Amino acid sequence: MEQTPATEYQPAWLDVIRWTADGLIPAIAQDADSGDILMMAWMNAESLQLTVAEGQAVYWSRSRGKLWRKGESSGHQQVIKDIRLDCDADVILLKVEQKGGIACHTGRRSCFYQSLQHGQWQSVEPVLKDPSAIYNTAQSFKEPNSE
Amino acid sequence: MEQTPATEYQPAWLDVIRWTADGLIPAIAQDADSGDILMMAWMNAESLQLTVAEGQAVYWSRSRGKLWRKGESSGHQQVIKDIRLDCDADVILLKVEQKGGIACHTGRRSCFYQSLQHGQWQSVEPVLKDPSAIYNTAQSFKEPNSE
Repeated sequence: MEQTPATEYQPAWLDVIRWTADGLIPAIAQDADSGDILMMAWMNAESLQLTVAEGQAVYWSRSRGKLWRKGESSGHQQVIKDIRLDCDADVILLKVEQKGGIACHTGRRSCFYQSLQHGQWQSVEPVLKDPSAIYNTAQSFKEPNSE
Repeated sequence: MEQTPATEYQPAWLDVIRWTADGLIPAIAQDADSGDILMMAWMNAESLQLTVAEGQAVYWSRSRGKLWRKGESSGHQQVIKDIRLDCDADVILLKVEQKGGIACHTGRRSCFYQSLQHGQWQSVEPVLKDPSAIYNTAQSFKEPNSE
């Protein structure tokens, strides 16, 4: 019986990516309709392949050292509409449909809710849902937003 | 004569940022009007302070190991409209006016011009200007797009 060629696990489109020394790439999630930037997290080759295969964003949690299916506890999945790569092949852009309209673990639409104004970071976006209502507080697990 | 306090060089808004081990933070540039994501590059504390002080994007070139005033050779400066910080304080979002309408060194509007389609990266955005016409080819210096 022939061995399965390794290339089956490393398609050509994955070969062109310039990973960090840790084997990661930053991935920006953007709302496909509004253009709002929702968050930035990290992917490894496995999470990027799973993102393509499942049609939903799967990141790599650096702090937990494991795959992180966005929305696995919040229900706020990100359905993939388009996957882009930048000119030097070291940043991914995901255009997504954000389930629940909330990407941030603080209950805000976007993680980028702090604006530098008069030398201070000001919160400029509303909390749409109490985080304790997003995450099942009966569970000990809480989904981190990006790490 | 009193010494200038160090805090003059490290304002409180800068203290909250969680830099990488290399003292950097990713910075996403977004067109303030259209919402298009133009590019992602890196900043150190000095480049972020200069960005605020000058009102134009100043990055840190990792490959060249020096400050990189976006547009210094192309003329395609990025005028700052808003500076955002994400929830865990380790990613910057710049909302900018992109001078010349071109952010990418390939002459395209955005660096994210490759789309994953049918298992291949396809170029899906037009070249608006020949790179040799953007950069003065009489100069030996060519501005890299992000590094």
